Amino acid sequence: MRRRLGAAVDLLCYTGGSTLDARLVNVEFLPAGKTLRVERGTVVAGALLAAGLKSGMPCGGRGRCGKCRVVFKSGVPEPTPAETDRLTKTELDGGWRLGCTATINQDAVIYIPNGSGAAKILTHGTRRRVLASPSIRKKHITVEAPSTADLRSDLERVLGSLGIEKSPQNIELPFLRHLAARLRESNFSVTAILADGELVDIEPGNTESACYGAAFDIGTTTLAAYLIDLATGDEVATASAVNPQAGVGDDVISRISYSTSRTDGLANLQSLVLQEMNSLIKKLSDAAQISSSHIYEVSVVGNTCMTHLFLGVDPASLAQAPYVPVVRQMTALSAGELGMGINPAGRVHVLPAIAGYVGADTVGVVLASSMYNNEELTLAVDIGTNGEIVLGNKNRMLACSAAAGPAFEGAHIYCGMGAVAGAVDAVWLDEDGLGFSTIEGKSPAGICGSGLLDAVVCMLKSGVVDEGGRIADPEELPQEYAFLKDSLRMGGNGREFILVAKEKSATGEPIIITQRDIREVQLAKGAIAAGIYTLMGRMGVSAEDLDKVILAGAFGNYVRKESALGVGLIPNVPLHKLHSVGNAAGEGAKLALISKDMRGDAARISNEIEYVELTTDAEFQQRFADALIFG
Amino acid sequence: MRRRLGAAVDLLCYTGGSTLDARLVNVEFLPAGKTLRVERGTVVAGALLAAGLKSGMPCGGRGRCGKCRVVFKSGVPEPTPAETDRLTKTELDGGWRLGCTATINQDAVIYIPNGSGAAKILTHGTRRRVLASPSIRKKHITVEAPSTADLRSDLERVLGSLGIEKSPQNIELPFLRHLAARLRESNFSVTAILADGELVDIEPGNTESACYGAAFDIGTTTLAAYLIDLATGDEVATASAVNPQAGVGDDVISRISYSTSRTDGLANLQSLVLQEMNSLIKKLSDAAQISSSHIYEVSVVGNTCMTHLFLGVDPASLAQAPYVPVVRQMTALSAGELGMGINPAGRVHVLPAIAGYVGADTVGVVLASSMYNNEELTLAVDIGTNGEIVLGNKNRMLACSAAAGPAFEGAHIYCGMGAVAGAVDAVWLDEDGLGFSTIEGKSPAGICGSGLLDAVVCMLKSGVVDEGGRIADPEELPQEYAFLKDSLRMGGNGREFILVAKEKSATGEPIIITQRDIREVQLAKGAIAAGIYTLMGRMGVSAEDLDKVILAGAFGNYVRKESALGVGLIPNVPLHKLHSVGNAAGEGAKLALISKDMRGDAARISNEIEYVELTTDAEFQQRFADALIFG
Repeated sequence: MRRRLGAAVDLLCYTGGSTLDARLVNVEFLPAGKTLRVERGTVVAGALLAAGLKSGMPCGGRGRCGKCRVVFKSGVPEPTPAETDRLTKTELDGGWRLGCTATINQDAVIYIPNGSGAAKILTHGTRRRVLASPSIRKKHITVEAPSTADLRSDLERVLGSLGIEKSPQNIELPFLRHLAARLRESNFSVTAILADGELVDIEPGNTESACYGAAFDIGTTTLAAYLIDLATGDEVATASAVNPQAGVGDDVISRISYSTSRTDGLANLQSLVLQEMNSLIKKLSDAAQISSSHIYEVSVVGNTCMTHLFLGVDPASLAQAPYVPVVRQMTALSAGELGMGINPAGRVHVLPAIAGYVGADTVGVVLASSMYNNEELTLAVDIGTNGEIVLGNKNRMLACSAAAGPAFEGAHIYCGMGAVAGAVDAVWLDEDGLGFSTIEGKSPAGICGSGLLDAVVCMLKSGVVDEGGRIADPEELPQEYAFLKDSLRMGGNGREFILVAKEKSATGEPIIITQRDIREVQLAKGAIAAGIYTLMGRMGVSAEDLDKVILAGAFGNYVRKESALGVGLIPNVPLHKLHSVGNAAGEGAKLALISKDMRGDAARISNEIEYVELTTDAEFQQRFADALIFG
Repeated sequence: MRRRLGAAVDLLCYTGGSTLDARLVNVEFLPAGKTLRVERGTVVAGALLAAGLKSGMPCGGRGRCGKCRVVFKSGVPEPTPAETDRLTKTELDGGWRLGCTATINQDAVIYIPNGSGAAKILTHGTRRRVLASPSIRKKHITVEAPSTADLRSDLERVLGSLGIEKSPQNIELPFLRHLAARLRESNFSVTAILADGELVDIEPGNTESACYGAAFDIGTTTLAAYLIDLATGDEVATASAVNPQAGVGDDVISRISYSTSRTDGLANLQSLVLQEMNSLIKKLSDAAQISSSHIYEVSVVGNTCMTHLFLGVDPASLAQAPYVPVVRQMTALSAGELGMGINPAGRVHVLPAIAGYVGADTVGVVLASSMYNNEELTLAVDIGTNGEIVLGNKNRMLACSAAAGPAFEGAHIYCGMGAVAGAVDAVWLDEDGLGFSTIEGKSPAGICGSGLLDAVVCMLKSGVVDEGGRIADPEELPQEYAFLKDSLRMGGNGREFILVAKEKSATGEPIIITQRDIREVQLAKGAIAAGIYTLMGRMGVSAEDLDKVILAGAFGNYVRKESALGVGLIPNVPLHKLHSVGNAAGEGAKLALISKDMRGDAARISNEIEYVELTTDAEFQQRFADALIFG
């Protein structure tokens, strides 16, 4: 079934050479641009090693963690069973394969994504293709110079060349202020910038081919940014950064508290995120070798608090019952007024939110999933400190937010850590015993969300933990898993499970999972599962009715589907109905960036979705108690 | 016919007292608020003297100069013949009288306008009454507070209370940024500011009754400002100031040259005018005891260069043939973005221009005159350094600008001066010989435009000057005017006419009119008359076809109609067809401020009026040569 890495790394690899050996094929790795010749049948991971590039296989090439994804641009091999298991049909059709199982059988060009096994800020998502129909269009025109026979104003002669009869509804002062000079310095050959058919600016010369937009996903922890060619809808560059607001507090509540307790709090937080977004714009522009003044549109998703802070709008009401936002929907804002580092005549589209704790990011997920257009009953879950849950189809959609707490982000966990190098991110139990992988293959220093969930599943499977969440006595372990006895010990706060012995740990201390950690996981998974079942109850459907379950966001992308099912985080559906879609919120931002229709859809989603407030829902309280049980 | 002042000042005046004498009546002077009792039949000027208030009679109470205008708010007397001569029907109906001829026959309240005999910056004009239909409307609402049963966003709940379903098309960030706080600090009782039915801001509490606008006329020399109650259209206060840009140059060309020759030139000029406008806003607000944040709309007229500079738009193209503006028409601009010292959510309407030298001020004159709606063939002339001329009616309108030069503003004239205290502003020739008046009755220091034109008419009438503009030999004078012989002398540059002997002059030097001065007047009147005749030729009409001739602006208001006709500045029409309308441009700004329909009309005027460029018009050159002849 699964090919072991050993076989691959033993290969003979040629870095160039002209031997016309029928056994040899050419492979080019992008974006590094490195080309080499390898033996036909070489596993991608082996070829990467030979090329001196990162192999990125946290699970050691077992086809388990799904983190070594690559994209075959040409020479695509048949999918392996592990790939059919772990990748969606869309992904497979798009050339996505696992680096540890896919083989190079013919000349191939293979793209190694940013996120592949290294950077853990999720910037890619499953792509929904829509026709690019941006607000902004550029048109090169040659304007008639003034003469005694043609005394029109500069504005009128530009409009005339465009065949526009009416003056713009909204005219920007900066445009008026450089209009005369730009016309004359370019000898009346200029490119008009049109927003929804209305003239908003001109540029000297012909710049028609340079028309870009930037999509942003403002996460509480991280920012993801995408540069898009507005003419084609193609992604040109991506970049990411830590949300610098984290410096004043990890979570939404601490940010709100900072913003309300200090006079300059809100302005500081806004300035922090804006500056970081502007430096991402610079990175994107540098990467694509374009001028940032050729970026004309920005779309933004994020949770409701993040979008409020981005706009400099007071988020205080989000911290007090009944948690209403100041604004859910708004029209395009002026880039210049907001201080975005793009063309000042540009527009900023903040996607609409649904409620105080179901934000524009969730609207982005719904948009990217297309669930609002489909007959299929879809459950979409985006897990962070809050789990945003949407259930429905084109006929009806319900949404809620479950306060999961930060366990799945590795916080409030004894040995917990974020998804950074050295974090245990996958745990398995097989014939060789308990195995694990770490991010970037570094010595284990702690455990992140996906590793924790895997570990709990292994603990449940082996009887180390029972369904109620109690860690067992060593004596209670079934014979089959008796070898785990030594991994159990009593700590200061009850039983503990030793996942990594101190000898193997980067810290010199064992990496353990405590009874309290298990309780944290129970509370988190209980909240999310109860949210899901509350929506299902409201909709009158059961697990069998679900046609599709979507796991969005970083955790949803990295978590093993089997583990999510194993702990009962999501309803019991067949594996093939379960899809990890990556940063679907970011995908939604991209769709809204390139298409007016998509922005219209986003507004419709925000208006039509029924929000269910869980904090005051009696049914939710009951279901929450039930959902604390694993499985 | 005319009552001499002497009879009036001899009156017995009581300042209070309780004698119930049937001969005595009460009079209150506004805005001073001074009340006194005077004998029935007292001339207003006499009562003013008795009250210790300025009488303001430059012509010494002869009913000639028309500068001592007052408004009877109650107790209006029948108009005297002098009033019927000098005041329009609208003025007479509105209670306007001349202070030197009107008598107090019953208890009366009399308003003494700012401009009455003192300040010469024209802030009043003949009022055209239109229904107030401003863009801005205020509505007090009580907004439902959030609850678990009502989770709408703050914005949605404000819109809901207003019965508005759709989000605003354009939303202002400052509004979003204080929305939450304003709702809560006022316990959800707020006043919504609606612009064309769209929510633009809220204010705490009920501020419905405070809804103001400010209209501005930006002249090259002076700024006039008017505070208007938008609910009623009533004028609440007026203020004026010297245009501080005059510090860098008197005329349009020197301003353009400053703005193009220095990097910060344009920004400096913009900032100068903006700051002065903001200090006028403060003066208006103080006078009316309102908050400037309750001013929501501003309208602006001015010549095309002035409106460009106000917007910070490069006026360079106005200084080079073919003299095209950068922008003629534009939509409302954001007060906050422009830096106007009113409510930042407010709008600024700059009236459209017609051409590079026929600006928004001319559109204002046309708007105020209603000529574009009427069947009557109207000629409107606004004289400054340029004479803007409009001819037409509702069927067709033509406009041009004639470069008159600054003679009518007292510049380039040997003893010329502006219309300030001590300037000779009226000259007459009667049985007593040559008489004159000065502004504020001060010792004569020079001569201003209206005085100059009067003087030329007297010189023509007495044969001191012939139709060709030549100053005569003393011997050539007709017997009847032989007494003027001594007023003629030879100077360094030809003959001179001594208007004021050095003994009577404030400077110790005689006030003279030189041969060159006469030539300047000829050139100025020639340009304007030729412009008028060119438009009449283009329209195919003659003087008899004119139903109405309107003289607008300061010069047009202060000049004696007989003198304007006497020198041939305007076509020979019966006196009753000739109307001085005061600051009609400012009136237009007020109309455009209080009414959307009027702004629509202004746009239509700017689009439909046919502009005639005189500098390249062969007919104009010919007519100019002809029009140099007086009479």
